[in-house]
Amino acid sequence: MGHEVLAGVLQIRDGRLQVLLWQRAREPHLHRWSLPGGRLAATEDVETSIRRQLAEKVDVHKLTHVEQLAVFSDPDRVPGHRVVATAFLGLVPSDTDPEVPADTRWHAVDELPETAFDHHRIVLAARERLRAKLSYTNIGFALAPAEFTISELRRLYSAALGYQVAATNLQRVLARRGVLQPTGRTVPAGPAGGRPPALFRFTSRDLQVTDPFAVFRPPSGSVG
Amino acid sequence: MGHEVLAGVLQIRDGRLQVLLWQRAREPHLHRWSLPGGRLAATEDVETSIRRQLAEKVDVHKLTHVEQLAVFSDPDRVPGHRVVATAFLGLVPSDTDPEVPADTRWHAVDELPETAFDHHRIVLAARERLRAKLSYTNIGFALAPAEFTISELRRLYSAALGYQVAATNLQRVLARRGVLQPTGRTVPAGPAGGRPPALFRFTSRDLQVTDPFAVFRPPSGSVG
Repeated sequence: MGHEVLAGVLQIRDGRLQVLLWQRAREPHLHRWSLPGGRLAATEDVETSIRRQLAEKVDVHKLTHVEQLAVFSDPDRVPGHRVVATAFLGLVPSDTDPEVPADTRWHAVDELPETAFDHHRIVLAARERLRAKLSYTNIGFALAPAEFTISELRRLYSAALGYQVAATNLQRVLARRGVLQPTGRTVPAGPAGGRPPALFRFTSRDLQVTDPFAVFRPPSGSVG
Repeated sequence: MGHEVLAGVLQIRDGRLQVLLWQRAREPHLHRWSLPGGRLAATEDVETSIRRQLAEKVDVHKLTHVEQLAVFSDPDRVPGHRVVATAFLGLVPSDTDPEVPADTRWHAVDELPETAFDHHRIVLAARERLRAKLSYTNIGFALAPAEFTISELRRLYSAALGYQVAATNLQRVLARRGVLQPTGRTVPAGPAGGRPPALFRFTSRDLQVTDPFAVFRPPSGSVG
């Protein structure tokens, strides 16, 4: 039995949630679009392997977050010899444009081209994980620039979630959890005038679950 | 390369978070304690496999929740031929006592016996996943009886989280999310007298993320 690693690398580009795919130049599934990844080598674990293989498609320093997504293990998921896949979710912030190889392009997740094997399912699982984590973690840091206005953040959350989020509600929810903080700076007001919008940043750029029970945790962090 | 599936099956027993382990009767790691599971067979995916193999250790009808946890893939995680493991989290409600084989026992997670291979790490990952999900989902349904008082639920959450949660705060957080509902029934008051405690149930026994942005979701459920 073989084992491969694959990554659904997502970024908000042009106001849409997009995924990085490369076009196959060989059979099987000639010309279909594939997720980056490949065979797990003998001396590496799955995390080491996906980072090595992503580095061949995209500057991994541009990735703000990588996590295990799920195992895809249908016996017939690829033709021939059985291959189990460990799939990852990767995120790139909206203000970078990583260099990618000639066979590789970003595609809107809601308008995918013909994909290879079960990669369509993996892309949708990556989107689902991102959407869920936007609800209960600070993962927005991995989609956003280092500093942003609430209006910019609203556009990123709306594109990722697939429905419009109100700026006031977004700010209220994130502020209550303590994941946003003002930088003290503003950007110039738009052509309509008014108050110059404030710039915010995420309090932490490490993934954290926003835990309503954490106030009861003993200060030592020792929880047995 | 081989592939195995393993499950960290957790239950609150005697007020403590416990895990189901069986004692190895053969080398390697003779007499050490192992998670239930085994080799992935040629015709099954990992979910089918873990449910089949759990059925040999515990009545699977007693499991209220099973989910993929993570892949464990250190090249040397088991001696000899390389084996990658897909680990699962399983949960059993506190009011059942499944029959288990003679080689199998429940062990408190904070007082584990000597475990085989990397199974200690997997048990701790299962506990960490459960604790995180108690914060952002309705997963408490899978630990609790069908009906319970807030006081009983508080003891389950406290045992799983590893620190004391106040009953009033627990009720407030879960009520705000709409995951608890009163049954309209009570249990007799304790020896100290007072008002008979109300019985509650979980609104849903399917795992749901409690999503603060969901109010903006279009009613159709069509989110592109």
